[in-house]
Amino acid sequence: MAANESPKKEGKAIRCRAAVARKAGEPLVIEEVMVAAPKAHEVRIRIICTSLCHSDITFWKLKDPPGYFPRILGHESIGVVESVGEDVDEVTEGDTVIPSFMADCGECVDCKSKKSNQCSNFPFKVSPLMHRDETSRFMDLNGETLYHFLYISSFSEYTVVDVTHVVKIDPAVPPNRACLLSCGVSTGVGAAWRTANVEAGSTVAIFGLGAIGLAVAEGARLCGASRIIGVDVNPDKFEIGKIFGVTDFVNSASCKDKSVSEVIKEMTGGGADYCFECVGLASLVHEAFACCRLGWGKTVVLGVDKPGTQLSFSSFEILLSGKTITGSLFGGLKAKHDIPILIKRYMDKELQLDEFVTHEVSFEEINKAFDLLIEGKSLRCVIWMNR
Amino acid sequence: MAANESPKKEGKAIRCRAAVARKAGEPLVIEEVMVAAPKAHEVRIRIICTSLCHSDITFWKLKDPPGYFPRILGHESIGVVESVGEDVDEVTEGDTVIPSFMADCGECVDCKSKKSNQCSNFPFKVSPLMHRDETSRFMDLNGETLYHFLYISSFSEYTVVDVTHVVKIDPAVPPNRACLLSCGVSTGVGAAWRTANVEAGSTVAIFGLGAIGLAVAEGARLCGASRIIGVDVNPDKFEIGKIFGVTDFVNSASCKDKSVSEVIKEMTGGGADYCFECVGLASLVHEAFACCRLGWGKTVVLGVDKPGTQLSFSSFEILLSGKTITGSLFGGLKAKHDIPILIKRYMDKELQLDEFVTHEVSFEEINKAFDLLIEGKSLRCVIWMNR
Repeated sequence: MAANESPKKEGKAIRCRAAVARKAGEPLVIEEVMVAAPKAHEVRIRIICTSLCHSDITFWKLKDPPGYFPRILGHESIGVVESVGEDVDEVTEGDTVIPSFMADCGECVDCKSKKSNQCSNFPFKVSPLMHRDETSRFMDLNGETLYHFLYISSFSEYTVVDVTHVVKIDPAVPPNRACLLSCGVSTGVGAAWRTANVEAGSTVAIFGLGAIGLAVAEGARLCGASRIIGVDVNPDKFEIGKIFGVTDFVNSASCKDKSVSEVIKEMTGGGADYCFECVGLASLVHEAFACCRLGWGKTVVLGVDKPGTQLSFSSFEILLSGKTITGSLFGGLKAKHDIPILIKRYMDKELQLDEFVTHEVSFEEINKAFDLLIEGKSLRCVIWMNR
Repeated sequence: MAANESPKKEGKAIRCRAAVARKAGEPLVIEEVMVAAPKAHEVRIRIICTSLCHSDITFWKLKDPPGYFPRILGHESIGVVESVGEDVDEVTEGDTVIPSFMADCGECVDCKSKKSNQCSNFPFKVSPLMHRDETSRFMDLNGETLYHFLYISSFSEYTVVDVTHVVKIDPAVPPNRACLLSCGVSTGVGAAWRTANVEAGSTVAIFGLGAIGLAVAEGARLCGASRIIGVDVNPDKFEIGKIFGVTDFVNSASCKDKSVSEVIKEMTGGGADYCFECVGLASLVHEAFACCRLGWGKTVVLGVDKPGTQLSFSSFEILLSGKTITGSLFGGLKAKHDIPILIKRYMDKELQLDEFVTHEVSFEEINKAFDLLIEGKSLRCVIWMNR
């Protein structure tokens, strides 16, 4: 299909362009694919733009399961509903939506509880297929199945997403800002806001000032933290960090005589109230735990180390310290409830999103987005599907 | 000094009887000792009765530091103020008090915060000396220094305790009940009440139904937990457990085809809301973490494994599960604030204490109390100083 032809609708497959990951670590190939009509409880979405997240790269590199090929990656995006399957009342054609990799069915005990964002009807897995029937909605022109990614696969002009993963939003929001709220920025902001529930006046330490770490800073800033200590091996991160409320910086590469945790304990007179590990290194989780304040310090794990990595803590220290360790998947946010709140806070000029977007490219340049993130040159690169 | 002579007071040392641990693991020796007058900020207490806790046995067995000898053990007790040092206004001669191994200075940022029970002016250590001047108030009749234990040393007719460790209580409470609140029972009840903040209707799993585990059950019962699952290798524990609200029992010794966590996940349709490890085995902490409910499960570590034991968790699981791990020292209780609340709840017939006291002996029989606890025959054995 040429870009200016109108796709076929009404319950039929759409032929459109997608960036297909054919082999682990090899450049994506933009090709024409068939996107099946949405089944019951499903929504077909025309993607407006998508941004690149580290998880896309992680799974793109994985040769073995949960790496699957050929696959359509992408999970940070915004789009417009093209058509809906049966039993979909929540959204209709033309609605602006953010697809979220976290389901929010609204009916299970978890979705009804304030304490969890882990839908138990549609639990988070790294499955390469749709939730309900465990099949794919994508096929290449040779009839080969293309795998989904995180229930989203936004590196396609059209995609099919279960309605439990679809968040209807205010169409007034700029799409190249809103897409960031599908994953990375929400994860960071939510980790400070929902998971840790950072209190005004608190001291926060953030290990790793990539997009997630900076989003934690932004969340902590919004929560009124009085001191936000960024830790990174790259001292240039302090400048960008300041935009998001980072007040102090520790260059972990230049901590020689003392460990980072010792430095932070000295800076804070005993430790930070909340520590966030945003890199995905077990050793940093230990440093984060060590520099959390005795009595109430909370360590939030956001990064993922290599599969199988163990985090070990002294039994004695856990017992005696009164400290807490917790993980944060999607920042503890409930997609359908919390993404609209974040959008409103952006529109009200409270939440900063503009500063995360360092690059914007056309769909054809998608591999450039990969290069920029891998080389550490971008925070978020927005990929426009049709520009 | 014979037992019926009046001890010398007024700023002078008191000669009285104490049970001295002379060598690791050897029976205590009741001998006469000298108890110095309280210095500034200190209180000399006549012990009425004391109960035996597992920590006494742990430290009694330790040949090397933090095991120290000769030493006066004991830290669960109640007594009457005999005299006070300078700058003590909080209590006066004749007051009934519970000495607590956790300081509560009331002035530091921790004592003023609702989030911590870890006094930062007088932090918990397993030091064998007094806090402020790091000396001992005990001496044997040969002039040899006797070490303190957990700032209490209640296996003595008189002891000297820093005022930050002294809780004034209602003298109407039976002493052989109140003494339990110095450590073990408070730790368990507090772990459910303060650390976990168990909600009404919750499901709780408790690994190990010794005195601490049963006290957790009692705390969970008071918080309104609807289901309290006890896990123990001894099936007889279910009967005593029922008294404290245990509704279900898993005999971990007979779990062959399935792990305990699998059994509990099946019983509860996904896992317990709160899990408490009260044995001190790293492997059980893992089972507790595994059977905590995805999304909000909280694992509370109360037991201590051997020094140096590491608890290891999969990085992936911590991140994705939304579960929390935390320790609980003295159940998160603030001694001066919370012990009087527990005493009132006992006097109001809400909190059950009577059932923990399985044995009572005279001071001369103190080694029998050790035998009973080591053999698993007692929950709490009260040792009366003069009966």
